Amino acid sequence: MSSPSPTPNTYPYQNEPTWSKSEKAIARTAFDAALGRELHEVIQRTKQMANAIQQSSDLWDLEHYLTERRKEIDRKYDYRYSQLRHVFGRLLYEGRVSEEELRGLRDDKLKSIRSLAEYLAKDAA
Amino acid sequence: MSSPSPTPNTYPYQNEPTWSKSEKAIARTAFDAALGRELHEVIQRTKQMANAIQQSSDLWDLEHYLTERRKEIDRKYDYRYSQLRHVFGRLLYEGRVSEEELRGLRDDKLKSIRSLAEYLAKDAA
Repeated sequence: MSSPSPTPNTYPYQNEPTWSKSEKAIARTAFDAALGRELHEVIQRTKQMANAIQQSSDLWDLEHYLTERRKEIDRKYDYRYSQLRHVFGRLLYEGRVSEEELRGLRDDKLKSIRSLAEYLAKDAA
Repeated sequence: MSSPSPTPNTYPYQNEPTWSKSEKAIARTAFDAALGRELHEVIQRTKQMANAIQQSSDLWDLEHYLTERRKEIDRKYDYRYSQLRHVFGRLLYEGRVSEEELRGLRDDKLKSIRSLAEYLAKDAA
């Protein structure tokens, strides 16, 4: 890592914190748990919407709901270490991950995660 | 109708049969009945698929199913008099409309509808 890498993906960005082995394990567990819970919610909502379908417009409302959820989930759950602090910041703001689940990450990461969550909360207010 | 119309939509195409008032009524009833049955099938299948969802891939399979059905239905149910013989030809081939329901259309129209249905049946064989 002392010389620039030829591939942009491995180039060490400035201010890009490294993730220790134990931090990676914590991040993976918290990430997967939040994604699993969000998918579970979408599954439950889909079953409710499907059971309530009476006419064609309800069908296409369900299609639209699924397309939007898929795009949102794809965008939100980006497991690149360069993105993880933003990902967790949003999940913390949305109540999809708890501080408890992030315990064990280094303080600088937690600070940056909390700071984004607070920014989003203020922005929405 | 003795002089060419300035708007292309009302221009009397060659070989374009006219539809009498009673034929229009028959066509509308048969068209709406076939569309209603097809939508009912999609609704039933959607409820089945939704109830069987266990994991995220099942969700996106349902989304894909709905998108495909919507596109196919949009393409297939084209209620323009210039298209109706093709529409009924396909619906007859698919068993979504019966000859019974088309009874009362003029013979030239029925012949052209049957002929497309037979062509599609041969093409699929």
